[in-house]
Parts: sequence; structure tokens; C-alpha cells
Amino acid sequence: MAGSIDARLKELGIDLPEAAAPVANYVPYVIDHKQLWVAGQVPFWNGAVKYTGVVGQDVSIDQAVDAARVCALNILAQAKAALGNLDNVVRIIKLGGFVNGAPGFTDQPKVINGASDLLVEIFGDKGLHARSAVGSAGLPLGVPVEIDAVIAIA
Amino acid sequence: MAGSIDARLKELGIDLPEAAAPVANYVPYVIDHKQLWVAGQVPFWNGAVKYTGVVGQDVSIDQAVDAARVCALNILAQAKAALGNLDNVVRIIKLGGFVNGAPGFTDQPKVINGASDLLVEIFGDKGLHARSAVGSAGLPLGVPVEIDAVIAIA
Amino acid sequence: MAGSIDARLKELGIDLPEAAAPVANYVPYVIDHKQLWVAGQVPFWNGAVKYTGVVGQDVSIDQAVDAARVCALNILAQAKAALGNLDNVVRIIKLGGFVNGAPGFTDQPKVINGASDLLVEIFGDKGLHARSAVGSAGLPLGVPVEIDAVIAIA
Repeated sequence: MAGSIDARLKELGIDLPEAAAPVANYVPYVIDHKQLWVAGQVPFWNGAVKYTGVVGQDVSIDQAVDAARVCALNILAQAKAALGNLDNVVRIIKLGGFVNGAPGFTDQPKVINGASDLLVEIFGDKGLHARSAVGSAGLPLGVPVEIDAVIAIA
Repeated sequence: MAGSIDARLKELGIDLPEAAAPVANYVPYVIDHKQLWVAGQVPFWNGAVKYTGVVGQDVSIDQAVDAARVCALNILAQAKAALGNLDNVVRIIKLGGFVNGAPGFTDQPKVINGASDLLVEIFGDKGLHARSAVGSAGLPLGVPVEIDAVIAIA
Repeated sequence: MAGSIDARLKELGIDLPEAAAPVANYVPYVIDHKQLWVAGQVPFWNGAVKYTGVVGQDVSIDQAVDAARVCALNILAQAKAALGNLDNVVRIIKLGGFVNGAPGFTDQPKVINGASDLLVEIFGDKGLHARSAVGSAGLPLGVPVEIDAVIAIA
């Protein structure tokens, strides 16, 4: 069933990736008390890792911003798998953003904006979220960015 | 409207900073189901970064403890902006503490105590929280400490 | 009062450690709105740190997997202290896993599986959780793994 957020995605020319299976023994999301907890998503695009490397070393800021955007698209793919329809998203509550940057790298906020900007573009005020953005010493599969989320649902 | 926590702050001689605007495209807090989710706060004091550097290198433990305290004051400034009155805090549920330390640094708990001690001093039993304290490879703006929070509200 | 999870632990030959006191000024768990928030647990076993060091350097993957398992046992020890009976666990919602790995280490998921596998072994479908697994530059007491949790309770 297509809804208004599906229409918004179409209008913006945004495709969602397939909801990725976890890389280990856990599930991609859990629903509890009208909250959807989404596991840490990495920049997968339909089964392949789109970016690997360290930001400010092998990966440029622009690439890292896009990696964060792809993490957010995967969060939405999981939300769609969980909820059936993204119109059931009431509010993006919180993003936890982890960035594997070179020594001295301090642009974690700029990188995680790749996710934040996308969510606001799609959901408007419902997409405005609290977040943390911190440096991480190494991430699964060598990706530069991992983001998890808590989402209020109908 | 001044409340009993405002009176307690006055008694302790504690001033709150201005609630800082986010450094990127997100909001400083979201309220959902009687929980206040506060975005990661850094040691800002009225618009200026109070500390930058790496703990155990450019920043001493004592300075890092104070940086964590200032992060907690910013969490309270956001809570006051969100709730109007800090008497609406029912319980500090969880702090997520990130410390940028020199290689081999293991005193993350001592650093984050700067925040924990303050919250207990102000709120008593309501200020006793669960927390994690971990090392972070780089933080926004070069700060040594970032802390986010989940708070139960009336 | 022994319950079915206690029986399951016995069947699996699993002992829980003593619930460890926090290493600083906070509490090991907070209950809010039928959610149990457990503070970051490290590989303590009855008061002693079982592992210290960096994964891929001083600590092997197998040891790190066991360290994560011990973190999860400590999470359960805290849950039992909080709830009296582990049958009151409705669902493990989320694990936050932090791994102190050598430069270039990317097997955080394999390490945190030590916790995830145990929870599924004990709780079955109720043990299936969302999670993040990230690299951490240094952890309290020099441990290789720290894990926190959010658990839905009856």
C-alpha cells in the first residue's frame, strides 16, 4: 500500500535499498511500546558494501556524507520492512552516529548530516531528531559510518 | 516559574549555560512517551567551546572531569528549555559518555563522573542513572567529552 | 523463586556472576515505563576483571568473544537483581557493543556475537535483539569489550 511518504520518496527520486540481513546473530529491528529500535546500519546497497575506509584518509568527506545518507536509507528500508508503510513513522527520535575518521578528524557532525538532512527532507518536522555523532576506532566490514536509530511509531 | 530544583541550583551556586543550538541539522531534544531524549552535548559554555584536545595529552583528567560536568550542565539547559521547569524531571535514566583519550587511556569512568556527580548532587536519588563510558576516536569540534541522555519526565 | 529461565540456565550449565557494583557514581540499572536500562557491563567475573587488552593484539578473537559473553552474563546478573526473576524479561530490545580493537580491526560483529548468541540460547525468540557493534578507542579498566542493554520487562 503506497502512502504519502512513498509519494514523497518518488517525488524526491529516492529509492530505498533492500532491507539488509544482519551480519551476525541479531535482528535488524525490535518494536517495543510504540518505539522501533533499528540496529546499527552500514552503507550497504542491495547486498554490497558501498564504501570502506577511513574518513580523511581513504574516504573523502563528500563520500562519507553519502555513506551516512545510505545508512539512513537502510534505516528507512528496515522501518518499511517493520511497519509496512512509512506513514506509520510518527517521529525520528534519535540517531546514534559513529564515524571512523583519521587521527585528528573532528567533522563527525558534517558526516552524519548526510543522514539527518535526508530524514528532514523526507519527513519534514517528523524527521527532526536528537542525535550523537562520535568517532569510532574501527567499524564492521571496514565501513566509514554506522548509524542506529530509535523511531516513534503509530 | 522557579521550582525546587531551581532553588537547589541556587543553593549549590550552579548556573546553567544557555541551551546551545545544535552544530548541525538536528534538534537538541525530542520528547516521546514521557521520555526526553537529549542530543549529545559537548563542553560549550554560552556559545564558546570550553575545552578542546585529547585527555591524557592536551587535557588533564581534572579538566576532563570539568568538561563532563559542563556537558551535564548543557544537558540540564536543554531539559529546562524542553520542560520549562526542571521539577518535571522524574529520573535521569541513562547517560552515554564518550571520551577522547590518549592511546592506552582507561579512566573514562573517572571522567564521566564529572557529569554523574553533578546530577546526583542536584537531583538526589532522581539523578542516579545507568550509563556507559567508552573511548571515542575523535569528537566534534575537537572536544574531549560528549554526553547524551535519556530522561524520564512528568 | 526459580522460574523457567533459571531452569534453562541450569540445563545449559550456565552460572551467573554476582551483579557487579558500578565502578563509579551511577547505578547498574534504571527501570522506566516497563523498560530496564542496564549500564555498560564489562567482563567482570565475581569482582575480578577476566580480560584486559586490545583485541587483535593482546586478546584473541576467541577471548574477545568470551569477554562479550561474560558482559552478557553480567547484564543478566543485573537484570536478575532488578527483576528478581528472569522470567520477567519480555524481550531483549537493544545491545550497544563497544570493542577495543587493534588498528584496522573490523570484526566487532563477530566479537559481540559472544553476547548475542548467549541471549538467544537462553531466551529463544525473546532474546533476539537489535544492536550496534562499533570500535572504541580505549575502555574502562583496559577491558576489550563493554556492552549496555535495553530490555522490555513485564
